[in-house]
Amino acid sequence: MIERYALPPVRDLWTEQAQYERWLEVECAVTAAHEELGVAPAGTADAVRRTAVVDVEDIHAIEATVDHDVIAFIKSATRDMGDDARFFHLGMTSSDVVDTALGIALKRSGRLLLDQLAELKGVLADQAKRFRTTVTVGRTHGVHAEPTSFGLKFLSWLAETERNEERLAAATDGVACGKISGAVGNYANIDPRVEEIALRNLGLRRAKCSTQIVPRDQHAAFMAALALVGAQIERMATEVRLLQRTEVHEAQEPFKVGQRGSSAMPHKKNPIVCERLCGMARLLRGYMTAAFEDVALWQERDISHSSVERVILPDGVMTTYYMLDRVIWLMRRLVVDAEAMQATFAASHGLVYSQRVMLALVRGGMSREDAYTLVQRLALAAWEGDADFHQLCLAEPHITTLMSPAELDALFDPQYYLRNIGPVYARFGLDNAKEEQS
Amino acid sequence: MIERYALPPVRDLWTEQAQYERWLEVECAVTAAHEELGVAPAGTADAVRRTAVVDVEDIHAIEATVDHDVIAFIKSATRDMGDDARFFHLGMTSSDVVDTALGIALKRSGRLLLDQLAELKGVLADQAKRFRTTVTVGRTHGVHAEPTSFGLKFLSWLAETERNEERLAAATDGVACGKISGAVGNYANIDPRVEEIALRNLGLRRAKCSTQIVPRDQHAAFMAALALVGAQIERMATEVRLLQRTEVHEAQEPFKVGQRGSSAMPHKKNPIVCERLCGMARLLRGYMTAAFEDVALWQERDISHSSVERVILPDGVMTTYYMLDRVIWLMRRLVVDAEAMQATFAASHGLVYSQRVMLALVRGGMSREDAYTLVQRLALAAWEGDADFHQLCLAEPHITTLMSPAELDALFDPQYYLRNIGPVYARFGLDNAKEEQS
Amino acid sequence: MIERYALPPVRDLWTEQAQYERWLEVECAVTAAHEELGVAPAGTADAVRRTAVVDVEDIHAIEATVDHDVIAFIKSATRDMGDDARFFHLGMTSSDVVDTALGIALKRSGRLLLDQLAELKGVLADQAKRFRTTVTVGRTHGVHAEPTSFGLKFLSWLAETERNEERLAAATDGVACGKISGAVGNYANIDPRVEEIALRNLGLRRAKCSTQIVPRDQHAAFMAALALVGAQIERMATEVRLLQRTEVHEAQEPFKVGQRGSSAMPHKKNPIVCERLCGMARLLRGYMTAAFEDVALWQERDISHSSVERVILPDGVMTTYYMLDRVIWLMRRLVVDAEAMQATFAASHGLVYSQRVMLALVRGGMSREDAYTLVQRLALAAWEGDADFHQLCLAEPHITTLMSPAELDALFDPQYYLRNIGPVYARFGLDNAKEEQS
Amino acid sequence: MIERYALPPVRDLWTEQAQYERWLEVECAVTAAHEELGVAPAGTADAVRRTAVVDVEDIHAIEATVDHDVIAFIKSATRDMGDDARFFHLGMTSSDVVDTALGIALKRSGRLLLDQLAELKGVLADQAKRFRTTVTVGRTHGVHAEPTSFGLKFLSWLAETERNEERLAAATDGVACGKISGAVGNYANIDPRVEEIALRNLGLRRAKCSTQIVPRDQHAAFMAALALVGAQIERMATEVRLLQRTEVHEAQEPFKVGQRGSSAMPHKKNPIVCERLCGMARLLRGYMTAAFEDVALWQERDISHSSVERVILPDGVMTTYYMLDRVIWLMRRLVVDAEAMQATFAASHGLVYSQRVMLALVRGGMSREDAYTLVQRLALAAWEGDADFHQLCLAEPHITTLMSPAELDALFDPQYYLRNIGPVYARFGLDNAKEEQS
Repeated sequence: MIERYALPPVRDLWTEQAQYERWLEVECAVTAAHEELGVAPAGTADAVRRTAVVDVEDIHAIEATVDHDVIAFIKSATRDMGDDARFFHLGMTSSDVVDTALGIALKRSGRLLLDQLAELKGVLADQAKRFRTTVTVGRTHGVHAEPTSFGLKFLSWLAETERNEERLAAATDGVACGKISGAVGNYANIDPRVEEIALRNLGLRRAKCSTQIVPRDQHAAFMAALALVGAQIERMATEVRLLQRTEVHEAQEPFKVGQRGSSAMPHKKNPIVCERLCGMARLLRGYMTAAFEDVALWQERDISHSSVERVILPDGVMTTYYMLDRVIWLMRRLVVDAEAMQATFAASHGLVYSQRVMLALVRGGMSREDAYTLVQRLALAAWEGDADFHQLCLAEPHITTLMSPAELDALFDPQYYLRNIGPVYARFGLDNAKEEQS
Repeated sequence: MIERYALPPVRDLWTEQAQYERWLEVECAVTAAHEELGVAPAGTADAVRRTAVVDVEDIHAIEATVDHDVIAFIKSATRDMGDDARFFHLGMTSSDVVDTALGIALKRSGRLLLDQLAELKGVLADQAKRFRTTVTVGRTHGVHAEPTSFGLKFLSWLAETERNEERLAAATDGVACGKISGAVGNYANIDPRVEEIALRNLGLRRAKCSTQIVPRDQHAAFMAALALVGAQIERMATEVRLLQRTEVHEAQEPFKVGQRGSSAMPHKKNPIVCERLCGMARLLRGYMTAAFEDVALWQERDISHSSVERVILPDGVMTTYYMLDRVIWLMRRLVVDAEAMQATFAASHGLVYSQRVMLALVRGGMSREDAYTLVQRLALAAWEGDADFHQLCLAEPHITTLMSPAELDALFDPQYYLRNIGPVYARFGLDNAKEEQS
Repeated sequence: MIERYALPPVRDLWTEQAQYERWLEVECAVTAAHEELGVAPAGTADAVRRTAVVDVEDIHAIEATVDHDVIAFIKSATRDMGDDARFFHLGMTSSDVVDTALGIALKRSGRLLLDQLAELKGVLADQAKRFRTTVTVGRTHGVHAEPTSFGLKFLSWLAETERNEERLAAATDGVACGKISGAVGNYANIDPRVEEIALRNLGLRRAKCSTQIVPRDQHAAFMAALALVGAQIERMATEVRLLQRTEVHEAQEPFKVGQRGSSAMPHKKNPIVCERLCGMARLLRGYMTAAFEDVALWQERDISHSSVERVILPDGVMTTYYMLDRVIWLMRRLVVDAEAMQATFAASHGLVYSQRVMLALVRGGMSREDAYTLVQRLALAAWEGDADFHQLCLAEPHITTLMSPAELDALFDPQYYLRNIGPVYARFGLDNAKEEQS
Repeated sequence: MIERYALPPVRDLWTEQAQYERWLEVECAVTAAHEELGVAPAGTADAVRRTAVVDVEDIHAIEATVDHDVIAFIKSATRDMGDDARFFHLGMTSSDVVDTALGIALKRSGRLLLDQLAELKGVLADQAKRFRTTVTVGRTHGVHAEPTSFGLKFLSWLAETERNEERLAAATDGVACGKISGAVGNYANIDPRVEEIALRNLGLRRAKCSTQIVPRDQHAAFMAALALVGAQIERMATEVRLLQRTEVHEAQEPFKVGQRGSSAMPHKKNPIVCERLCGMARLLRGYMTAAFEDVALWQERDISHSSVERVILPDGVMTTYYMLDRVIWLMRRLVVDAEAMQATFAASHGLVYSQRVMLALVRGGMSREDAYTLVQRLALAAWEGDADFHQLCLAEPHITTLMSPAELDALFDPQYYLRNIGPVYARFGLDNAKEEQS
């Protein structure tokens, strides 16, 4: 991933140095298992751990000849090991090391992302509470629909974050998996108990049935989980972009002191972080499609997934981490203009109350069909004539025969639309009111 | 494709009946070539054409046994043909028929789509001329930038339509291609001149080097061309959706008499066609990715592309046709509210003139850096204080020492921003003014 | 989906008729909830259910005017309902009906697919047991690696089926979800208890927080689950395609009596079903990418997902169902040639035992590095000289000084490679042997 | 792109340093145009070029404050420029610089890739000539079909390379495009002639109608062209992987001295480069899908494409460059085993001649249907009984009554299948024989 988007906690997980260190972790765990099973003499594992070398330059130099990275790693790692080297990589195939170490990397990556999701949940819950009684217009199709609570938007994102957390946790569990089962997965040259012991100590699950490698459906599922996190962030960022439009300006992303929005237009404050996040969601979708093509490897394995994963696994994790980092910042520091939210209602001439008027007419005895037709006629008149819908209703005999002006007035009350959100808040544990009392 | 989106001109091209008729076209063209080369006796081609049968039910019945659609077709087609059947499918392999016939279907499909693109160009040119002097605010990042001509939006789409026309024409030419080269593409059992004669008469190009089939990179390129048409329509539809937002309402898609926007909210007029088009662009992208995976068939061919193409070729063509049909309607009948366009400027307090003020200050001798800082300060004051930027400038000594109020007033003129669009129109042949005179 | 791939159980779920019937199910459930809560008089729900009409033609006729399918449905459904129509669709918005009904369709679809996965698991377990002791060559990179059990391939697929079952069950649970929360998801005009009662009776979960619609991340996750099922089937089909290659012919897909492989080449038996399945996996990936773009809808909803879902949800479900149907047939009736599996070993001149020889040398005291170099030299000599690796080893002094001919012979034993598969079978409950005893 | 796959010629094009140098190229070209038009005094362009600074560290330091890379670049570049800085970036918007400079980078990238395609064409033509008379079995569905020329495979790839060259050239021409048209593309603050002069001197086309930026359909088309190159390479690499399978070993990728195929199995020679290339084709498809989502930017532009392009443009170009580099190596040094190609025919018992026998029977007077049935019966008998098809034919009375043993023998001649390939070679100018003489 380009430097700009590679934040340290995940970037450091995916350096070449870190990868070789994980390879060594796996080799040592296997040597220890051999020792535990009596194959290697007591003390071998410690000796191996002590004398093993991780020297990236040296590995590269050897790889230039042997054209095989694991063989180069072994040669380099054991160069000072003397006789104990016999128990290093014993009975293993390259993929036992590579795939198990990848399981460690993915497990750690998944955890960092899950930590961010937990933090995001906290921020969203706080904002949901903060804006619970802030009335805003709900928009469907980009058009004013009905009043609602601004806090409800945060709850909607919170619910999606919960789902993404659950999916990512399951997917991380899927890839937090190793295998020490040899060249074709049948333990021909290694005792299955070695795998059991080594993976337990490494904190990984065992692939229930491996080929030469850990099956790749789990990596595809992991990338899909990342792409879903990306899509959620895209949804949130799109909302902010829509709210930050000049005519709306109900919310905007934080603008730093000294920041400049445009080299040409000094007045510009643009939602550039939100736009960036929308783009990055596309990157994640692209990585995902590549991962899905990696599943159908040939027979006991082909290595076509490897070049793909060298790119998409670190890039996918780093992109997601960056996106979560930025969306947490965005949500926490979102600039909200509640006054603008009230002012916006004027743009739709009171039409957001049309359903409520219609339902009142039905309750008053009018047929739904007649009520719909009447209200639609008045609504279009208001919209096209720049007139106030409330006033048109007051002047409409079919309405005034069914209700008094005061009864009609009561229908044009934004607070009405928030009366039932308590139960929704309660589902997230954010409300004293029990849902049953709604 | 579901009935809802399958419009007759393309739907009828992709029925099973139509497919078998094209297969027969190809078989007859090959028989005629054999006759021309003296392999089949004079009159064979006519006889074959006269006695051949296309009976979908019968083909299905035979296919249930032989599990091979071309063999079933041949059996059925020749059932009344008597001895001439010897010259039917002579020296051919199934793919000679299937792929050449597919070339016909794709060529016809491409032409229908190209006709629509031509029609769209006409509509866009008309609208570009109609709205040439209509001033609207240009928006970048969703934020007011500078005034511009509403007509210029149509020119931008017109230019993209021209590019899509060029790409689709090239891609259609790519798939308007056949092959009569036998089981592995080496003409082992058929004279290469048969291919030459037959394809010429069918109006198709010859695959320069075929395997058992026409190479699939061309079909992938065709699907990419469709997806690009889809993406253009998505761009146009997104623009309309943004203009139709309640706070903006500068344009909207036509609303039919009697149409209802919502079962709950009688006041709603939603850009549902635009939204539908945005969705359909995603469908086309999905079809495209499947097509790209079809390229790397095994050796002289495998048939994995076939199930894909049975779906994505008709569905891709029909989706694109539907989208073009609707976007032509949308563009032709777009409801434009030029008054709203003027009113919108108020939302940004005159800030759209900020660059022009800054450039005037630079011309007046201020450094660019100082001018930027000054104008940005006034701009933010206007934005945050709901004040008018023009008034703030008039009250600013650093400005008034450099220019008179009248000079400043002249800067706040929307027409100024249209002074250089003549050359752009001229590039499309839509302007008397020569570009050089700008 | 085209007729060819639309099998009745799922096809019938996705007809327009079936959709309107589900809409009616939802409307009736909501009316019943209103009745339970005392809003509608006792008996209303029954009356509504009795008098409601589902008449596709009529709905189409009305839709041609109102351009809104739910409104057309309501008008048509209630045409004979008289006064009770007041309680039909009461307080609801279109999406309450459409999305809840979609939840029913997806739940039923998911269940049909889960039934197939269960059946597939049974077939795979049977074949795994049947071929447990069948020795075959394991291939990595397409090259002979080491002997293994043919049954182990089925276990590998079985494990993947279990994972897909788990993922699809979770994803189905995700989409088996409804919402009766009104126009912007805040229950403004409907009691939240109506949703609770209605969804409980419909067997659906409640969207924890809805907008106008059920959030679309769950639909994307569902499509990803389908694409993963497709990718598994692609992996299995690719294995069979590779085994059916002329030079290998160790397994092949069933060939029906009377079937014809080629119109030109009477000798051909092609793995056409496997190839078809590989293609269909691409379709599913394409549908998935479209679904992921549907997540980031605008604010309280836009309708761009709708055109996408009209196509990809039925097509995705039907494609997956068809693929599972065919792969169950393929796995159950796979033609296996165990003799050919033995004969194949000759192609690699005994090289599959190279690792075992190397490890024996290490055990005999040679360094791993020396042993690798020696064995690689002999291996290349065998491969390039068409010589037998076993014989070359017998003639190699560095080997014969470390072990007797009998000891060497014992290394060339294919059964050796199956000695540790018992624990793998045990993990699936397919073995008496406990894993611990391995 | 990770270091492993980033080859110098393209890597160096996409460093941050190189990017800022291109930005400076553009700024200088614009200043020169201002000078040419008399806006800037004579000598300004030279002075600007002489005093401009490109200092990546400094730019980063400024960007940390202003959060806008172009503004940071301008500040840094002009720090030693004194008064001439007034004519630097004059009348421009950031995108004028960024997008025009991107056009330069893409044009140069495209040219490097086109050079490689030209080189690949040469290699493929050479190999096609070299293997023209090498008989090999053609395989469809992975099953032996009919004999063919091994050289024909190279011609098939050559034809695809020609098509990719044409598509990439067109796509490169599409992105080799700039715009100096200001904040919303209407030249409000800049003379259109500045763009004309500057782009001419930079060797770029002018966007016929720009918004704030160059339209993104062209970038999507460019990424599709790369993905098609990738798909071709995937096809070629798949062919080699299939030929290198142990049972086939007709061709293999070069194996370096000292190379090791496996850490566990010393005998392994794996087509790892081919597999790597197959994986990388997936990466390109993923990048492409992201690019297609970038087309529908909002109105006069949004910046969501930017984060995408920072990654996919360099990564896409570098991936393609690497793939071409490796496939040229692969094709040039492919290890071909013509003897193995002959030996392979035995695997299909002479069945590859079945069509020819059938056609001879038809010529001898048998109906096509009868001939097919007869030959299919003998073919299955040969296949299932491990018998020789030729011998079975000789023993079949229905055949021997129609032709003599010598006539039958003549049908079993592999050279027959190469008799018509001359015209195909001639289409590529690789044959003296004129195509007409076939």
